[in-house]
Amino acid sequence: MLEQDPTVAETVTLRSLGGVAGQRTQGLLGRLGLTRSYVMVNTFVFSVYGQGGGNAHIKDESIAAYRNNWLNAIAGHNDLAAIITLGTLATSAYNQWLSSGVTFSGHHAAILHPTYPESASAAGQITLADATKRLLANWNDALPGLVAAIDHPDEPPSGAPYGTAFTAADLPPIPPEDLPAGTPAWMRTARDWAARQGADADTKRATVTVTVPSAARQWLTPPSLRGSGRRGAKAAVT
Amino acid sequence: MLEQDPTVAETVTLRSLGGVAGQRTQGLLGRLGLTRSYVMVNTFVFSVYGQGGGNAHIKDESIAAYRNNWLNAIAGHNDLAAIITLGTLATSAYNQWLSSGVTFSGHHAAILHPTYPESASAAGQITLADATKRLLANWNDALPGLVAAIDHPDEPPSGAPYGTAFTAADLPPIPPEDLPAGTPAWMRTARDWAARQGADADTKRATVTVTVPSAARQWLTPPSLRGSGRRGAKAAVT
Repeated sequence: MLEQDPTVAETVTLRSLGGVAGQRTQGLLGRLGLTRSYVMVNTFVFSVYGQGGGNAHIKDESIAAYRNNWLNAIAGHNDLAAIITLGTLATSAYNQWLSSGVTFSGHHAAILHPTYPESASAAGQITLADATKRLLANWNDALPGLVAAIDHPDEPPSGAPYGTAFTAADLPPIPPEDLPAGTPAWMRTARDWAARQGADADTKRATVTVTVPSAARQWLTPPSLRGSGRRGAKAAVT
Repeated sequence: MLEQDPTVAETVTLRSLGGVAGQRTQGLLGRLGLTRSYVMVNTFVFSVYGQGGGNAHIKDESIAAYRNNWLNAIAGHNDLAAIITLGTLATSAYNQWLSSGVTFSGHHAAILHPTYPESASAAGQITLADATKRLLANWNDALPGLVAAIDHPDEPPSGAPYGTAFTAADLPPIPPEDLPAGTPAWMRTARDWAARQGADADTKRATVTVTVPSAARQWLTPPSLRGSGRRGAKAAVT
């Protein structure tokens, strides 16, 4: 699974594909019968400034050489049945890797990026609903080839096609084992809990603010609703 | 190694004992010949609001029961030669654990907390230099017993006593293997890079802001000083 670049939240959790993109991708892997036999990497280790920032650097040879080291290490130590590239920049990175002289005999599926609906509709030429429909049709097209290629799935794949919109069942949470021990559950959800803040671009670039979502602020629960396990928790304000 | 509670930075790195306290502790472990055969846990999983917040909860039975589960798991799955408790709350927690009916046949060293000099001098009854001298004398007293007890160190222990102030050699960085892969080097230093921010106590409690230290903002390096590997990095502001 080759992704574009980390979101702000992913710089904290240190797993590629968190939040909305992560849940959509996890659902796709689930349809392929993959619950743990996958690896996710980014085209760019560090966040790029929008698609433009990615386009500006996709031909950078030193970045490609560094990325190819990672891809070689992954492909050299694992029996990869398939590589899925999410979006055009990841597909470019895959092709650059092949151009470096590598032979990959597994299956390659180039599909639309999981947040294509949001970025395409924000650009104004398609509605969110239509872009979602297009994304899911595109993913449906890729499902049979992937199911056929993945000969050792973790469990029998359903391969079931998506409908025309994401359902709750299409969006499983990120598995806790994919994140460092002790990571709170809300860090595995699609909530916006991390942001870059600052008065100028340099400060913003250097800053990540993590905020516990309101619904997860258990210390605000009225004492009458608390279990004995949280007795007195409110006093421990810090 | 039983510590009091996590600092803000430790809620991000997910290793107990980071920053200044971490470097001092790592130096102590080094003198004992321990480079990897240690485990660090907190008396409180979540940050307490100063020593007062800790004192208020040290007798909480449900917290103690939960902590004892962790201590039992650690002691039950490892051959512990010694337990070091850092500060009075950690020592209370150790005693509570023994009171639960556990037998620990290894060595126990109760020593001053690594940031005792800062907290004691902030309270105003001793200078930072004198408090540091007292801390190091206290640690020196504990060294021979610990060296004798730790029968399988990772490397031969020096056991060398500290002087009257910390030297640079006394403050090794946190080993990279102790933190999630990809953690930047400045997260293993004693710099203040994480803080709670907010206009009121509840917001502050729910917020952690991570800021790249100025010296680590490589994108601000003038282009003439950059290696080719960072070519064009400045454009990737995000």
